[in-house]
Amino acid sequence: MSNQITLYQHGTLALLVPGLLTGTITMAELLKHGDTGIGTGEGLDGELIILDGKPYHVHGTGDITIAPDSFTMPFANAHFARYSPLAELENVDEADLNQQMISLSRARNTFFSVEVHGVFSNVQTRAAVKSNPPYNTLAETAENQSVFNRDQVKGTLVGYYSPELFEGATVGGFHHHFISDDHQFGGHVLSFHLDKGDVSYQLFDTFEQHLPVGNKQYMEHDFSNDDIAGGIHQSE
Amino acid sequence: MSNQITLYQHGTLALLVPGLLTGTITMAELLKHGDTGIGTGEGLDGELIILDGKPYHVHGTGDITIAPDSFTMPFANAHFARYSPLAELENVDEADLNQQMISLSRARNTFFSVEVHGVFSNVQTRAAVKSNPPYNTLAETAENQSVFNRDQVKGTLVGYYSPELFEGATVGGFHHHFISDDHQFGGHVLSFHLDKGDVSYQLFDTFEQHLPVGNKQYMEHDFSNDDIAGGIHQSE
Repeated sequence: MSNQITLYQHGTLALLVPGLLTGTITMAELLKHGDTGIGTGEGLDGELIILDGKPYHVHGTGDITIAPDSFTMPFANAHFARYSPLAELENVDEADLNQQMISLSRARNTFFSVEVHGVFSNVQTRAAVKSNPPYNTLAETAENQSVFNRDQVKGTLVGYYSPELFEGATVGGFHHHFISDDHQFGGHVLSFHLDKGDVSYQLFDTFEQHLPVGNKQYMEHDFSNDDIAGGIHQSE
Repeated sequence: MSNQITLYQHGTLALLVPGLLTGTITMAELLKHGDTGIGTGEGLDGELIILDGKPYHVHGTGDITIAPDSFTMPFANAHFARYSPLAELENVDEADLNQQMISLSRARNTFFSVEVHGVFSNVQTRAAVKSNPPYNTLAETAENQSVFNRDQVKGTLVGYYSPELFEGATVGGFHHHFISDDHQFGGHVLSFHLDKGDVSYQLFDTFEQHLPVGNKQYMEHDFSNDDIAGGIHQSE
């Protein structure tokens, strides 16, 4: 049971900032830590959303495929889903939803996940285009991204909330990914309006931070001059 | 094997800052996560150093007792010891040792533990005196502390290193506790000179952050106005 109250994370947002984009965990390994999650591929290769143990990979082209076990990532989150229904909401945008999640869950000082299934409108997502070594910074790499829009779409949003204290290791606050029920549209969520949907959440008491200690570039990098907060806000 | 590469932490340094000093984990529970560690008791009740599964409690009086299973803590670290010898060092002070640990371990971007056993001189430790609710801030509570000095003393130093990125959740950099071989002297280390000792270290790839989600005061606290970095540096 205890693994249902743990949020696993491989890598940190901070390591993406200077461009440490080498894939340091395989999908096979990540899936040992959860059946639900988000992430990005080596070289900022698109956006991942894992649902029911299936890792959907939204490419920079917008195409969606299932990532193979050998797919590698510099950063990912995963957990074993056991969401509790929180509310059925209508006509809320992202800021409303986030605010209601904080109020209803009363969990702003811990990690939790949000899952919303329903009908959305004006969904805007993005997916970065994979770059090759030598990697540029996150901000430079993320400039090469595609933005996708869909007006009416039925689908699932999976998000994580992290307390501000962990900004840098994580995105402080909310970080949402999306995939449509027909698996034709998805990515990192930039904005949305929820017409009507079921909102559920899952609270964690443990944040399991795994670091790529086997990666020489990571271990030797001097982070002291990186503008981590700036790099994250510019790109996330 | 995997639990020998995990550093477990209950609570955060940040929660101590505004005075959330209620004990939210028992010693019995903490010892499930390690046989080695450090921490403080409810109400900032002294300093703990766990060696070989034995939790030594350095009281504000300087007395050292074994903490019972029911002893509770707002903040603690633990791990299962499997240290690797790193060096035999002579005539180094704290700043030297810390710098050498960083150079020799090449692990500044991950969590690790340091253990030093040997002969120390001019060791200065402190232990806070337990306060009762309603608690004051960490800085106010820590004013009521005892400082202990010992010139020549044989003993064990246990410390943790955390990357700067995790400052706030942890003490960024090094955090050392000490206990003499005769169990008569110890506490949170303020300064020392190592005459001669064996230095070993243990690298972690995982930081397991456990939060006191069952504690209403913690969950409802507004951390946004706390000077977390200032509070930690003033007191640690």
